[in-house]
Amino acid sequence: MAESLTNQWFDPLFRADAMRRVFSDCGRLQGILDFEGALARAQARAGVVPAAAAVAIAGQCRAELFDVAALSQATATAGNSAIPVINELTRLVAAVNPVAANYVHWGATSQDAMDTGLVLQVRQGLDLVETDARQLCAALAKVAAEHKETPIAGRTWLQHAAPTTFGLKVAGWLCAVTRNLERLRAVRPRALALQFGGAVGTLASLGSHAEKTTSLLAEELGLRPAELPWHAQRDRLVEVAVTLGLLVGSLGKMARDIALMTQSEVAEVAESSAPGRGGSSSMPQKRNPVGGATVLAAATRVPALVSVLLSAMTQEHERGLGGWQSEWETLPEIFLLTSGALCQMRHVIEGLRVDAERMRANLDATRGLIYAHAVSTSLARAIGRAAAHQLVERACRRAQEEGRHLHETALGDAEITQHLSAAQLKMLFDPQPHFRAAAQLVDQALAAAGDLLSEVKE
Amino acid sequence: MAESLTNQWFDPLFRADAMRRVFSDCGRLQGILDFEGALARAQARAGVVPAAAAVAIAGQCRAELFDVAALSQATATAGNSAIPVINELTRLVAAVNPVAANYVHWGATSQDAMDTGLVLQVRQGLDLVETDARQLCAALAKVAAEHKETPIAGRTWLQHAAPTTFGLKVAGWLCAVTRNLERLRAVRPRALALQFGGAVGTLASLGSHAEKTTSLLAEELGLRPAELPWHAQRDRLVEVAVTLGLLVGSLGKMARDIALMTQSEVAEVAESSAPGRGGSSSMPQKRNPVGGATVLAAATRVPALVSVLLSAMTQEHERGLGGWQSEWETLPEIFLLTSGALCQMRHVIEGLRVDAERMRANLDATRGLIYAHAVSTSLARAIGRAAAHQLVERACRRAQEEGRHLHETALGDAEITQHLSAAQLKMLFDPQPHFRAAAQLVDQALAAAGDLLSEVKE
Amino acid sequence: MAESLTNQWFDPLFRADAMRRVFSDCGRLQGILDFEGALARAQARAGVVPAAAAVAIAGQCRAELFDVAALSQATATAGNSAIPVINELTRLVAAVNPVAANYVHWGATSQDAMDTGLVLQVRQGLDLVETDARQLCAALAKVAAEHKETPIAGRTWLQHAAPTTFGLKVAGWLCAVTRNLERLRAVRPRALALQFGGAVGTLASLGSHAEKTTSLLAEELGLRPAELPWHAQRDRLVEVAVTLGLLVGSLGKMARDIALMTQSEVAEVAESSAPGRGGSSSMPQKRNPVGGATVLAAATRVPALVSVLLSAMTQEHERGLGGWQSEWETLPEIFLLTSGALCQMRHVIEGLRVDAERMRANLDATRGLIYAHAVSTSLARAIGRAAAHQLVERACRRAQEEGRHLHETALGDAEITQHLSAAQLKMLFDPQPHFRAAAQLVDQALAAAGDLLSEVKE
Amino acid sequence: MAESLTNQWFDPLFRADAMRRVFSDCGRLQGILDFEGALARAQARAGVVPAAAAVAIAGQCRAELFDVAALSQATATAGNSAIPVINELTRLVAAVNPVAANYVHWGATSQDAMDTGLVLQVRQGLDLVETDARQLCAALAKVAAEHKETPIAGRTWLQHAAPTTFGLKVAGWLCAVTRNLERLRAVRPRALALQFGGAVGTLASLGSHAEKTTSLLAEELGLRPAELPWHAQRDRLVEVAVTLGLLVGSLGKMARDIALMTQSEVAEVAESSAPGRGGSSSMPQKRNPVGGATVLAAATRVPALVSVLLSAMTQEHERGLGGWQSEWETLPEIFLLTSGALCQMRHVIEGLRVDAERMRANLDATRGLIYAHAVSTSLARAIGRAAAHQLVERACRRAQEEGRHLHETALGDAEITQHLSAAQLKMLFDPQPHFRAAAQLVDQALAAAGDLLSEVKE
Repeated sequence: MAESLTNQWFDPLFRADAMRRVFSDCGRLQGILDFEGALARAQARAGVVPAAAAVAIAGQCRAELFDVAALSQATATAGNSAIPVINELTRLVAAVNPVAANYVHWGATSQDAMDTGLVLQVRQGLDLVETDARQLCAALAKVAAEHKETPIAGRTWLQHAAPTTFGLKVAGWLCAVTRNLERLRAVRPRALALQFGGAVGTLASLGSHAEKTTSLLAEELGLRPAELPWHAQRDRLVEVAVTLGLLVGSLGKMARDIALMTQSEVAEVAESSAPGRGGSSSMPQKRNPVGGATVLAAATRVPALVSVLLSAMTQEHERGLGGWQSEWETLPEIFLLTSGALCQMRHVIEGLRVDAERMRANLDATRGLIYAHAVSTSLARAIGRAAAHQLVERACRRAQEEGRHLHETALGDAEITQHLSAAQLKMLFDPQPHFRAAAQLVDQALAAAGDLLSEVKE
Repeated sequence: MAESLTNQWFDPLFRADAMRRVFSDCGRLQGILDFEGALARAQARAGVVPAAAAVAIAGQCRAELFDVAALSQATATAGNSAIPVINELTRLVAAVNPVAANYVHWGATSQDAMDTGLVLQVRQGLDLVETDARQLCAALAKVAAEHKETPIAGRTWLQHAAPTTFGLKVAGWLCAVTRNLERLRAVRPRALALQFGGAVGTLASLGSHAEKTTSLLAEELGLRPAELPWHAQRDRLVEVAVTLGLLVGSLGKMARDIALMTQSEVAEVAESSAPGRGGSSSMPQKRNPVGGATVLAAATRVPALVSVLLSAMTQEHERGLGGWQSEWETLPEIFLLTSGALCQMRHVIEGLRVDAERMRANLDATRGLIYAHAVSTSLARAIGRAAAHQLVERACRRAQEEGRHLHETALGDAEITQHLSAAQLKMLFDPQPHFRAAAQLVDQALAAAGDLLSEVKE
Repeated sequence: MAESLTNQWFDPLFRADAMRRVFSDCGRLQGILDFEGALARAQARAGVVPAAAAVAIAGQCRAELFDVAALSQATATAGNSAIPVINELTRLVAAVNPVAANYVHWGATSQDAMDTGLVLQVRQGLDLVETDARQLCAALAKVAAEHKETPIAGRTWLQHAAPTTFGLKVAGWLCAVTRNLERLRAVRPRALALQFGGAVGTLASLGSHAEKTTSLLAEELGLRPAELPWHAQRDRLVEVAVTLGLLVGSLGKMARDIALMTQSEVAEVAESSAPGRGGSSSMPQKRNPVGGATVLAAATRVPALVSVLLSAMTQEHERGLGGWQSEWETLPEIFLLTSGALCQMRHVIEGLRVDAERMRANLDATRGLIYAHAVSTSLARAIGRAAAHQLVERACRRAQEEGRHLHETALGDAEITQHLSAAQLKMLFDPQPHFRAAAQLVDQALAAAGDLLSEVKE
Repeated sequence: MAESLTNQWFDPLFRADAMRRVFSDCGRLQGILDFEGALARAQARAGVVPAAAAVAIAGQCRAELFDVAALSQATATAGNSAIPVINELTRLVAAVNPVAANYVHWGATSQDAMDTGLVLQVRQGLDLVETDARQLCAALAKVAAEHKETPIAGRTWLQHAAPTTFGLKVAGWLCAVTRNLERLRAVRPRALALQFGGAVGTLASLGSHAEKTTSLLAEELGLRPAELPWHAQRDRLVEVAVTLGLLVGSLGKMARDIALMTQSEVAEVAESSAPGRGGSSSMPQKRNPVGGATVLAAATRVPALVSVLLSAMTQEHERGLGGWQSEWETLPEIFLLTSGALCQMRHVIEGLRVDAERMRANLDATRGLIYAHAVSTSLARAIGRAAAHQLVERACRRAQEEGRHLHETALGDAEITQHLSAAQLKMLFDPQPHFRAAAQLVDQALAAAGDLLSEVKE
């Protein structure tokens, strides 16, 4: 019965298991319990509660002692997830030490436990994201270096534009991910902050012990004490969400490029294949790029989830009605979809099959038009940019209309050959200057990324 | 282990059980199986597959014969949910009738099964939404009728404006829900359409049997045959989502009004209470309006989910890469959150505690300012709208500055009393004309809603 | 100075002029004035205001008499756009008939004028959208009919799947647009409703004249009287927005397909070219598909704008604070971007250059793999679907690995030729059955669209 | 005619003039021209173009020499805004120095000019935002300090919870804005980066001069050279958008609190009034909180605009089709709405009228229930948290049902008085401990904010 209500079919496709563990019901429960246990220990150290009580409380703060399904049902009545946990924890503590039960959740409010528990999950989530992103960077750096001189058609507005190299394209992906790693690092000090304010954020019930308790509690949990309780100020957590949103956007860009390169007509790269991977129920020849589809799906979904959290920031007074509640499933979902996209993309890059010959063949397939810019630039040195542009445009048009190579139509155009000799023209239809320039940029990008990655690691 | 990955804590709070059943993993599976079973039967009727094969296939199309967890894992490899189901169905059929196994999923493609299965879930989902919405309407109509003459402060920009009645406010909520019911009815013919096109939507593999098979299959499932297979044209399904989005928006408006009226300083209504409902872990006096918070959370989340589906409509060619995949969890989630909001709101309205005395007290608390419009309108008959507005504005300012009643400052203003006698003025500070006017509108709205509801029922 | 603050550079690219006129500042002003003029006339007919006053008021309700820049500045102070208009209108009327000035805006509130004025703009906007959509349908029907038998590769997940025809692809676009036209028609009765409720929606200041005034006012404006004033119930207008959102989504799908087909490596269609259209500042050979880019930009922007309006539905009490204000520019913007997308798409389709030869060449470029489904289906008749799928999958893999044609590897596979003769196999590598099936569907779709279009026209 | 198409009515309400100037058509034009002028100068320094040409080019890079309306029209044909500017610039330069005209836009591509121009606008925009945010902080700090001991009801879920002070509430707003200032500073190094890559990002046409030109160009513009051209990697700019989104969210929270406090029933604060500000066309007593409405409207709109940019990050290959185009108006709009919200909020805070007496009266209006938490905490020291919670819950229920003060019902409850003496109980119904605790936190927050603000200033 309970079983029949699960809705998890697509979890293994869209979400990574390690992150699912962090944001599972157990993870949420353990986060709350970690807060309660640390609170008791901190208060014992501060002399607010008896040391024995703290030991008894902390001893029961283990998720496996609780029935999550019952907590979930009780939450529907209570309206928040902490109340049932605290009630049950009190009962468990009372069974081993009735006096200690009196000190459970002392001076705190539900949101203290829920938010700090969430911050602990966020810390684990950020660790996982960073590890995966770092591995993705390593894989990207390898491909970029390997293909820094592999010519490929540069494409703008989905049209052939001018030659570049596959390595430079990959270096662009790499630099974006490293910038996102930099952002993920920057978000930590603001996001990983203790929430502890009691009923309305004054900690009045702790009287003169408030400050000491707060700093010891932060220490116990390895979190930063906040300059103020931040119950209804959600910018710390939403900043995490937008940062993940930027990362997913960068992954989506990568996935889009790869998806386009895997098209049957382009066929420059392919996702690694495995038996049954990306098959079709009707078409035996199909190898669908499942990894890319998954990443693009995340890139379609996460921006809207980010907008939910931004919209929900207008939370009323000392604790919101509606806005806060709309976060409870949304921030975890952003972590989960990010984890899935990241792992799929790492898998795609690590297994990417690159067809350098096809890249070169595609480059050559538009009969020299891709060198129009080179011709025009060269000609411009003699007759100016605008005039050169017009002359070459005409030669291109002729090439397309007559199905001839641009080299040929350019050679046949006296206004062009007046300024460019046949030898000069010939050199312009060579990808070498392009991939040389690209290779140099790749080196520069790899160096920058390397610096950043080692810096981020510290 | 598998258990430790569930993330369903808030399901009982945010989602209704009946809808969770429809959009559970089992519901999804049964949807696909219902397609496969009906396909076999239709093809037997069309003479495309042997009758015995159809019987054998249809006999295995029962969700309880399948291992959903295994299907879920296999989906992560296959990239869609139909392939593992079809493979497993084929295996099950082969065990009872090896020949029949050859005809499983004949002529169809994965998306045919996934989309049609989804449409069958959507049909059940719409039925549930309509039933709940209809019950909500009944509850609203009752409250509107009961309080059609109960005076309350009309508020604009969160400021007291002019008197109205609580019944008229409720009638406004009611009319919005009935309009949404009308929309839900209108969406059915377009949304509840069979998806059946084979690999790329031509049904070429069925040759001359295509048309007949299609119409029989639609008949078997009680769906409309579509004018064309619509694999990558998602407007039919997205229309369902936007329609639910409008309903949730209307529920959110209602919840916002109620939340504001439950404020400690306003206290005109309260959600019904039950032991433990809406408590606080720190504040014994609290009765948090859990129902309203849940509805407002849905109203914050659903608009963004709708935007995901609208964004995802740009699906490539005959089957999309990324866009389609981003729908798989999003449309069900919209149904689920809608169901939760609807049930919570029904519960709130059915149990709403209305404090008519407090409504009247609040109306009177602003010392007559709420009648400024009435005074101004009356005065305008003599000296024109703009001049009257200015005179009354001045009297209001004086009343506020001096902490006096507007009636008093108006009486003390010779420019006003020149045109309005004391008796006339007195009558203007009476809510009666306001609640008379309101009551008449409530009657009119109840009649209109009644007509629509009986019409929708047909 | 005022000039230096305009931000309209991209208007001609993203928005159609006719729609810009409707939703210009003048259009907004005239909408409010049309309400005020009609109100005076209706009230004269109802005996609420003197006939001469109505004539004087209506005579000044012409946008050209007003200074929009001044109104705009005054709006920043007043907080809504109607107050400055009413003040100025009163001044203008007073200049010609001082008594009449007393009756300007009689019994109404600002939102009555703003909303009804907006509804009048919406009516014009819907007319324009429908006209453009209808012309787009005509253009699509023409292309679909012309190419109903033009073979093209059907593509799923961006991979070649099975043959279809270009006409069927276009018919899919056409059917989506016709369904959107059907929706646009359905939205009118709910959306084109008079807003008239006075201060808080009771019309109390009109006393016994309320009902009569309301029905005459609706008649004057050609709008439906609403069952209740709907100041803070925004579903009527948001329904318009979501309906436009669905249309833009369908246009985006079309644009995505076309963009993919215009890629240099695919080159099956091209946007019509014109001097300077889609050029590049650096690359003389470029012809960027500007139309498609514009439509895709709209399809990226409009879903989010729709979500703003859905989010903003939770408007407080009798007039909202924040939600209502967030609509003022958003709904017009949705109309404007829709108009631009629609006109660009119409232009693209009317001028579309179709290269049927290239379509055929692309179909043949994957060495028969695109017929794998046909082979598999045929083989399945002998050995069952699953076994056939496996055999053909193997032959496909071999074809790809060895760079040979599937026809060849299939012929070389004894397990296949055991069931399919050489003659049978040969026939399976023929697009004809595919384009026959497609052509039949195109005919069916054109008939259905034709019916719907003539029905919608009524 | 052109006039009749403007759609700027609400600009003065929603957008600040200084920001409108930055993101005006002229601002956009000048951004592109600044790029072109600096490019010429940098290339002269690098020896790529003649020094005289650079002088001639830079001399024409003044917005006032151009016809923006004509550029706007030409953009609709060209598809991007740089092409018409470059064409016109070339013409202007040719008129003064025909040879120099040959070197206009040398080696660059349209997106280089558009993106770098935009980055220059972004720099100005960030400067304005920071100045305004800093002034807002100063105003907030003043109010927080002034009211650090002013008691007010702390409210959670819109219900009275426990006492706090108005100063602490304001300090919470302040800390959020200072965190946003910190973010705005952090975003600069990544966002204010030169875009310069030529046709496809290789700078191949500059050959060996590429690196030198790039670094000189960055120097000329005061921008950071990027590690790679980032044409289709949009995370740098989207990070600016999300950061503004966070700021607007924090402003929205503030506006929500203030809006709720301005309600007629609460009346604890009011926006400053001015003649005509926030009036009503029908109700003379109204003073609508226009500032708050404007901020809340921005907080409703900006999250969706942010989601557009996140969605648009999946840009194809070396230059996108659709995604890039969807940014052109969206990022400026985010700046504009942020500026409006910020200026309105600054205005609101600087003019805020605070009614401390009403705050105290509201605190006392719930007959002691707001002290329930204090009673419960005190009692818990004797009998444990859970038991105390239950006893006080019962006393609260009795107080509510009987309309008595909690102090009274507590005194009448023997189970309570067994543990708390009358003198002890009396002390618990005193706001002093609450505002002492709050005041201390305010001091702490003001110190932290002060540190951060002076740090950010550096």
